Amino acid sequence: MGMLETISEQRLHGGVQGVYRHHSEACAGPMRFAVYQPPQATRQLCPVLYFLAGLTCTEETATIKAGAQRLAAELGLVLVMPDTSPRGTGIDGATGDWEFGEGAGFYVDATAAPWSTHFRMQRYVADELPALIAAQFPVDTALSGLCGHSMGGHGALTLALKYPQRYRSVSAFAPIVAPSQVPWGRKALPRYLGDDPAAWADYDACELVRRQTFGGTILIDQGEADPFLEAQLKPELFDQACAEAGQPLLLRRHAGYDHSYWFITSFIDDHLRHHAAALGLS
Amino acid sequence: MGMLETISEQRLHGGVQGVYRHHSEACAGPMRFAVYQPPQATRQLCPVLYFLAGLTCTEETATIKAGAQRLAAELGLVLVMPDTSPRGTGIDGATGDWEFGEGAGFYVDATAAPWSTHFRMQRYVADELPALIAAQFPVDTALSGLCGHSMGGHGALTLALKYPQRYRSVSAFAPIVAPSQVPWGRKALPRYLGDDPAAWADYDACELVRRQTFGGTILIDQGEADPFLEAQLKPELFDQACAEAGQPLLLRRHAGYDHSYWFITSFIDDHLRHHAAALGLS
Repeated sequence: MGMLETISEQRLHGGVQGVYRHHSEACAGPMRFAVYQPPQATRQLCPVLYFLAGLTCTEETATIKAGAQRLAAELGLVLVMPDTSPRGTGIDGATGDWEFGEGAGFYVDATAAPWSTHFRMQRYVADELPALIAAQFPVDTALSGLCGHSMGGHGALTLALKYPQRYRSVSAFAPIVAPSQVPWGRKALPRYLGDDPAAWADYDACELVRRQTFGGTILIDQGEADPFLEAQLKPELFDQACAEAGQPLLLRRHAGYDHSYWFITSFIDDHLRHHAAALGLS
Repeated sequence: MGMLETISEQRLHGGVQGVYRHHSEACAGPMRFAVYQPPQATRQLCPVLYFLAGLTCTEETATIKAGAQRLAAELGLVLVMPDTSPRGTGIDGATGDWEFGEGAGFYVDATAAPWSTHFRMQRYVADELPALIAAQFPVDTALSGLCGHSMGGHGALTLALKYPQRYRSVSAFAPIVAPSQVPWGRKALPRYLGDDPAAWADYDACELVRRQTFGGTILIDQGEADPFLEAQLKPELFDQACAEAGQPLLLRRHAGYDHSYWFITSFIDDHLRHHAAALGLS
């Protein structure tokens, strides 16, 4: 997993907010991530919540804007915020398009050239990073939760549905739930995975939930003033898929809220409490 | 006061986070500021808290990083976050130095050329902006509080001590309390105000508190791992000046905290409650 380099560590709510860099095997290059350690982490192993960010974001975005640390400090929850893709890949076409490439990894393991050499964010988030976190931070990896926003909500839902034994809880803000059917996914998935829709289905929450449900209620918050709601997000598709699959889902719609981190921070405490309950913290 | 232009308004914690632009007479140019209106503001006039940011900051900094809106929504407190200086002044030397000029207005009314044409942040923050806020937002201007960080803490303390009838409460994070005696002030004040130390004293909290005290306890939080503590901040000077002047001061020192917004957000709720009590909200 390579050496862990500390970029910064600062006191926050009685704990430590850190940013770190390491060499990722999955992404074949350096990756950054942020970790918040609550005060309890100096005395005991703590449950851990991964937060996956959306298009254009980095490890800094949720760290600065989600406002999750205040209640995490109270609950005793470690927060891990990874970057959204490999960086500095040098691949032609990897930068300059906010919907694809760097900043837009879609939490898939790319199989199509040239992306397959670096863009393996599923493996990174589900395997490599948790192993690194377990080795370097005071976390109880048996107690892991997964949350995400937009493209990161897609990441959270798909990873939780694929690896339900690894996560005790999952939630999402304004997630992409049916990438096989919406423009963002129809643009990115064929380039990362090739043209066979069967490959896309492996990264489509609406498809995955029909194969295997998650052992707990999925919490999703969605703003009704979200400009991406109708064309890209379509939560009703996941609502229907969960109903058909027998997957418990709590889908909340909030009038007036948009797609921004102002929406996330307005409801992040509810998500932390959702995870805390599943992780034995409340 | 000029027309008010809405740059953005977004739903946040049941209220509205907005960013606005207007032509400022005091600063002789366009100025931006951010306002958070809590849910209560749709039904009644609310008390208002001004937050003055520090060197290099804009109206966005505290808005995004301080995390004040969550409790403001609960308490029913309007938040106003101005920019830290005029912008786009075109004055030679106004940009390129983070300690002076644009982003470093020091909340003074400059009297020395060429700065006196635009750099009148005292008048802007104490007169022009409150009049605009009163005219355009549902605030009870008789219930105003003032808070700030670093250079903005200097702004909060000096304005509250100069205009104690305008503010019911004042607090600061890691403020510059003796600009006449520290490098930041010794660099900026002579350029804005000329070489006479008597002019600097009008913007020095340690001097001002000896002339006139503030009608309430001043709350100051200071991190002990703040890299600017010894050379620039020197809270002990204000502690002594307040003791000599009979000014009630609650100066709290926090081990391990630095000068960043992680420090601010860790204690912002205490500041909001301090103001809420003085503003009749609790």
